[in-house]
Amino acid sequence: MIGTSYDSKVKELPMKRQRVGDRDMASIKDVANLAGVGLGTASRALSGKGYVAPETKRRIEEAARKLSYTPNVFAQNLLKNKSGIIAILVPAMDHCFFSRLVQELESDLYKKGYKTMVCCTSSGGHEEEDYLDMLENNLVDGIITATHSFNDEAYLGSNRVVVSFDRDFGGHIPMVRSDHKAAGRMAAEHFIKKGCRKVLNIYGEDATEGHISVGNAHRELKVCLEAAGVQVVEEYTRQDRFNMGYYSQVAGACLEKYRDMDGVFASDPLAEAFLWEGKRRGKRIPQKLKIISYDGTERTESISPRISAVVQQIDKISACLTDILTRRIQGEEIGEDKITEILWRQGETC
Amino acid sequence: MIGTSYDSKVKELPMKRQRVGDRDMASIKDVANLAGVGLGTASRALSGKGYVAPETKRRIEEAARKLSYTPNVFAQNLLKNKSGIIAILVPAMDHCFFSRLVQELESDLYKKGYKTMVCCTSSGGHEEEDYLDMLENNLVDGIITATHSFNDEAYLGSNRVVVSFDRDFGGHIPMVRSDHKAAGRMAAEHFIKKGCRKVLNIYGEDATEGHISVGNAHRELKVCLEAAGVQVVEEYTRQDRFNMGYYSQVAGACLEKYRDMDGVFASDPLAEAFLWEGKRRGKRIPQKLKIISYDGTERTESISPRISAVVQQIDKISACLTDILTRRIQGEEIGEDKITEILWRQGETC
Repeated sequence: MIGTSYDSKVKELPMKRQRVGDRDMASIKDVANLAGVGLGTASRALSGKGYVAPETKRRIEEAARKLSYTPNVFAQNLLKNKSGIIAILVPAMDHCFFSRLVQELESDLYKKGYKTMVCCTSSGGHEEEDYLDMLENNLVDGIITATHSFNDEAYLGSNRVVVSFDRDFGGHIPMVRSDHKAAGRMAAEHFIKKGCRKVLNIYGEDATEGHISVGNAHRELKVCLEAAGVQVVEEYTRQDRFNMGYYSQVAGACLEKYRDMDGVFASDPLAEAFLWEGKRRGKRIPQKLKIISYDGTERTESISPRISAVVQQIDKISACLTDILTRRIQGEEIGEDKITEILWRQGETC
Repeated sequence: MIGTSYDSKVKELPMKRQRVGDRDMASIKDVANLAGVGLGTASRALSGKGYVAPETKRRIEEAARKLSYTPNVFAQNLLKNKSGIIAILVPAMDHCFFSRLVQELESDLYKKGYKTMVCCTSSGGHEEEDYLDMLENNLVDGIITATHSFNDEAYLGSNRVVVSFDRDFGGHIPMVRSDHKAAGRMAAEHFIKKGCRKVLNIYGEDATEGHISVGNAHRELKVCLEAAGVQVVEEYTRQDRFNMGYYSQVAGACLEKYRDMDGVFASDPLAEAFLWEGKRRGKRIPQKLKIISYDGTERTESISPRISAVVQQIDKISACLTDILTRRIQGEEIGEDKITEILWRQGETC
């Protein structure tokens, strides 16, 4: 039998019990020790890369069998500097836009041979830095960042593969985003066409800074509405809160503060909160209050009444992010941003 | 300066250009080559584990500096057989229950020092097997599976750390689940109290088999309602469809088929679809149709009318899954299942 004649050279070590959760499973170091060779020799023999004398190779293989050594993907990745893993950073996973985006990205990346890690950054820890460290340490091959934190420097210090969704790193990191200015114009046109006189323009406080691209939709809406003589009032939401309880509270407070407003432009869950809170206050929608959501995820279409929306095409955003990221991993120098088209969807709230 | 006197021993290799996406970055092998030592010696020197002669160590560190070598986490994990990564398998990410569960798990695991990978298994590829392979190969330290696929054998063949949400592996893998039987009884009580005569009991076709635990809620509902003389009709949804378009279609078809039904028990998004489709057909809710959802995620509470629900406590489910998984990774043999309490939330639909 193959390897039998080398048994005498294999030192006997006490057998380790294999059980669930046993972290003392045989490592390549154990195999090298048992076979009486160095770590590098054992690694070459078991990965099949590099020269090892046939007799030594068989001794190492025998040791691996004796120890029930499982070939370690890390060992191979160590030599290749490749993990096959992409990290996706989003502010929240239970926000309808980001859960849909993550689902699409996971599927698109899987088709390209990559596994997906996710991280929700809204809890306010050091998650972003952690993942950038993982990128530096080859634990992930690339990062797609869709978070709105302000720590730009950490990203800019990295010389690896990062692609941004909607976050402007001043041209240093490629960005994919929807055509936000067109979205703002489109919403303004519909408010004007329907005769609105006072529109609430509400968005995340982080997007008031220039580097969060979605803010451009809201800035453009304001410009277009005011040019047409429509009054615009503005409010801002916290960047670390994404639950419906918070959105309902915000919508209720705005409805009390601006009793004469007749239009509101907000992200999906907040637009939905205005719908429910408006109804609870007996506000007739769309007659007395017109609502346009920006995201236009499936959820806003399935409810009754259907929310009128400017739609970001999440499938196309995901495809662009995946394409740019994977090409950069392969060494292509892609610097330009990619802008995806937005669409109008007529619902029952405008 | 430290290391300067050893410069002469460092062989000159052509400098590699460092750029974004460059996969030819220096590996530990390059460092070992440049320093003229073996891979094992370089690994020991750079990880600080195991003896290396001081002079050799300085030569290796100098080589690492010259090559801009980034310490490789894989190298450390290779020695420890530990990745610090947990994989979570869910049927879909844009289903309100699972997106919330993933968000909680990611946060709980992060606090315990683990990063999270996610995989949506509803697309029907070989994802589950891929992740089990990763577990075998030490690329992930454990798996939390919340998928409903039928390939039990693959899991049972694994000797590593798997914890199940709601999927019964016949006692071979610990399972966390809500108290589904109590949930079914609770829903039945409310339908009976409100005088329902014909209730639609609708759930995933996969849960009709015994190994998907949530099916017990629906089986118990049927038993309790029939014992009270209430007629029960049953329908099943596809296990690979989770979008609202599909749920709306199913709800519409059921409302046409059972025009005299006065109650429906369904998962959150489907219960919501019954609400909207019922309203579109002029059905008065709750007078003519009582709806109870099972999951009771925040979303069903924020809409108007609020959906009456039996609530699964996702935060507690996540805490249990995280606790069992991390203790198993540390070698504890935890075999028993964990059952979390359910709650009733009175809404406006029952």
